[in-house]
Amino acid sequence: MAVGTELLLGQIADTNGAWLGEHLAAVGVASHFHQAVGDNHDRIVLALRTALARSDGVIVCGGLGPTHDDITREAIAEVMNVPLVRDEAVLERIAALFSSRGRTMSPSNARQAAVPEGARVIPQRKGTAPGLICPVGHKVVYAVPGVPYEMADMFERGIAPDLRRRLRERGEAEGVIASRVLRTWGMTESRLADVLAAHIGSLDQAAISSGGETATIAFLASGIEGIKVRVTVRAADDAAASARLDAEEATIRHVLGDAAGDVVFGVDDEAIEHAVAKAVTARHLTLGVAESLTGGLVSSRLVNVPGASAWFRGGVVSYATEVKQSVLGVPEGPVVSAAAAEAMAVGACRVLGSDVGLSVTGVAGPDSQDGRSPGTVFVGLARAGGAAESAELAVPGDRQRIRQYATISALDLLRRRLAVLLAD
Amino acid sequence: MAVGTELLLGQIADTNGAWLGEHLAAVGVASHFHQAVGDNHDRIVLALRTALARSDGVIVCGGLGPTHDDITREAIAEVMNVPLVRDEAVLERIAALFSSRGRTMSPSNARQAAVPEGARVIPQRKGTAPGLICPVGHKVVYAVPGVPYEMADMFERGIAPDLRRRLRERGEAEGVIASRVLRTWGMTESRLADVLAAHIGSLDQAAISSGGETATIAFLASGIEGIKVRVTVRAADDAAASARLDAEEATIRHVLGDAAGDVVFGVDDEAIEHAVAKAVTARHLTLGVAESLTGGLVSSRLVNVPGASAWFRGGVVSYATEVKQSVLGVPEGPVVSAAAAEAMAVGACRVLGSDVGLSVTGVAGPDSQDGRSPGTVFVGLARAGGAAESAELAVPGDRQRIRQYATISALDLLRRRLAVLLAD
Repeated sequence: MAVGTELLLGQIADTNGAWLGEHLAAVGVASHFHQAVGDNHDRIVLALRTALARSDGVIVCGGLGPTHDDITREAIAEVMNVPLVRDEAVLERIAALFSSRGRTMSPSNARQAAVPEGARVIPQRKGTAPGLICPVGHKVVYAVPGVPYEMADMFERGIAPDLRRRLRERGEAEGVIASRVLRTWGMTESRLADVLAAHIGSLDQAAISSGGETATIAFLASGIEGIKVRVTVRAADDAAASARLDAEEATIRHVLGDAAGDVVFGVDDEAIEHAVAKAVTARHLTLGVAESLTGGLVSSRLVNVPGASAWFRGGVVSYATEVKQSVLGVPEGPVVSAAAAEAMAVGACRVLGSDVGLSVTGVAGPDSQDGRSPGTVFVGLARAGGAAESAELAVPGDRQRIRQYATISALDLLRRRLAVLLAD
Repeated sequence: MAVGTELLLGQIADTNGAWLGEHLAAVGVASHFHQAVGDNHDRIVLALRTALARSDGVIVCGGLGPTHDDITREAIAEVMNVPLVRDEAVLERIAALFSSRGRTMSPSNARQAAVPEGARVIPQRKGTAPGLICPVGHKVVYAVPGVPYEMADMFERGIAPDLRRRLRERGEAEGVIASRVLRTWGMTESRLADVLAAHIGSLDQAAISSGGETATIAFLASGIEGIKVRVTVRAADDAAASARLDAEEATIRHVLGDAAGDVVFGVDDEAIEHAVAKAVTARHLTLGVAESLTGGLVSSRLVNVPGASAWFRGGVVSYATEVKQSVLGVPEGPVVSAAAAEAMAVGACRVLGSDVGLSVTGVAGPDSQDGRSPGTVFVGLARAGGAAESAELAVPGDRQRIRQYATISALDLLRRRLAVLLAD
């Protein structure tokens, strides 16, 4: 259950529901309903009662902040039919957080230490609002902040362990739902589906005959995160689920590999920059980047990798043509071209002192440039003192999507070419 | 109400709810609850009954397709307590669509011509499934496909006109709900709430005494997008709503301005990079950026602005210390310092040939650097051939959030200082 008028007004989209659905499945808990409700006391109470009537447990996200429209605590207390009491440990933690930042706690922040009587606290770690575990008869309401990373942290520390304990006590610890995501780049979503169609058909057959242990495959295009192939299995326990996922992963890699080579660049949370980091560090190289239409996106992805300073030297965002020429040494002529991409990659090696240079130039649109239409992208690669090469791509979408696709395409090309580049 | 097990499992996120919320508000209809439910007959029926009990109307998205798990039609018929009957006009339209594509209609597609007795059809235009307008007593259930563009098309053609007619028949002023977002940087969410508390109190009082035309204020911390102050008003028509929003915006700007200066950097979709673009272009300047811990994020935001090539020269991502020194001319010594930030800003002007240089250096963590703890950030500003200045900030959060806050803080500082810098 998500709380916040901004959700109902369409000012932000709820992403917590999808995240929780995925992670509840991993604990073996089925999600039957999602709800969203505005910052209105009576309607939050009504939604909570509805949710408790049709489910064994409810997770409420949002409405725990310090301001007057944060009223989830009060609504839960009404549903529990108990008063709010001040939790001194929570109050101290909030006060300490403020004093550590050299600020004084405002009265509205003190509201965040109010807890429905009989509720347990999930201590806050990143923000000021604690989470709550609120028993309602033999059912339970969990309350966590709506900020995604605070919600996720409290789910892992507080909610998941409590759910597992409840499942055990009910003798329902049998069975887990687990999934694994293979991240790919280089095939469209429908091409992936076509290539895997025969395998998916055989899984459907097996599910019908087994009636229990099943595996399903789904596809999800995720922009700069790649196109995801998700395998979900239901099995007796973690070990069985893990073995089944391993077998499915091997089959999928095999089928895709036969069709289009090394399209799987990562598993689960492993993004394209992690794959690049692995390839670069395995060969003890350093990397420099020169980018034009992506405007810093490629570099900003690379520094996401912990320890990037060991191998990432830096980048030049050569947005203006004169910067391409004066800083990177790109010759006169069209800047959306193979020659410009290669010169940019060579320039990146030289200016940034890196072993390998990666470059991206192209047209983000909406207008054409140098007679090239939006979506035309050149990726360049160079070795310090060695040869340069380039590839031309045509990527779809608007300005924003062209940038994102150009970024993942460039990083994927680097990942695939590193072995070859070094063997030259 | 969204129907689809994939929503509950987190395999896709629901975006229809946000779209509908925004468009219902424009018709003058308040959204009180969103729900999502899986492809399960009993639970769809339960969710429909719940929704009808607490609202005057329900829009159901999804579950109208041709496959065995598309069961929204059956669930609605059960709630209406009527049989499904075949609509020959719909059937003909589906058959015609298939024959126009040179295919024959499958028996499962014929299911899409089944309509609850007493329901009206919203003719399909883009796909094969028609929409449904299903009276339930004096309330109504609208059913539309889950595919976003089909849903949007049927909302405009079928649902919005029907809702307007219902509002007229109930003699309800065809009011509108409108909102405006003021984006701020420089005050915490709770500080904003405290400063605006008296004004919010007076709005609450006015709402009680007027009973109709109201304004409400809510706060939303949105990371790199700033902290949003959202004003929502209900008024007789668009002109009245707009006037009311103007008045509220003026009051809020005045109250915040008295407390902390120019904290409002944008309205609605106006992000911090747009505010910077405005300030830079108004003074006919060009900008160059040098960044370290933000790794390209600052540049990648700036190129989001259409026409950025007119004033944004480019950036240097000086991640390695040697790059700071060799490319930007930063002197030996600690790189997380005011001196380094100022040298980077001067270097950006020189290397990129810009009128103004903006720099960011700092510690993203998790480890300290140069004896400075994570979250320590220096922002530098320089004019070509002029003086440089810098500011030290302490930003909270993990690696990712420190980067985001450092980025918006640097851009906000540039926006605020541009006038002063030029007057020096």
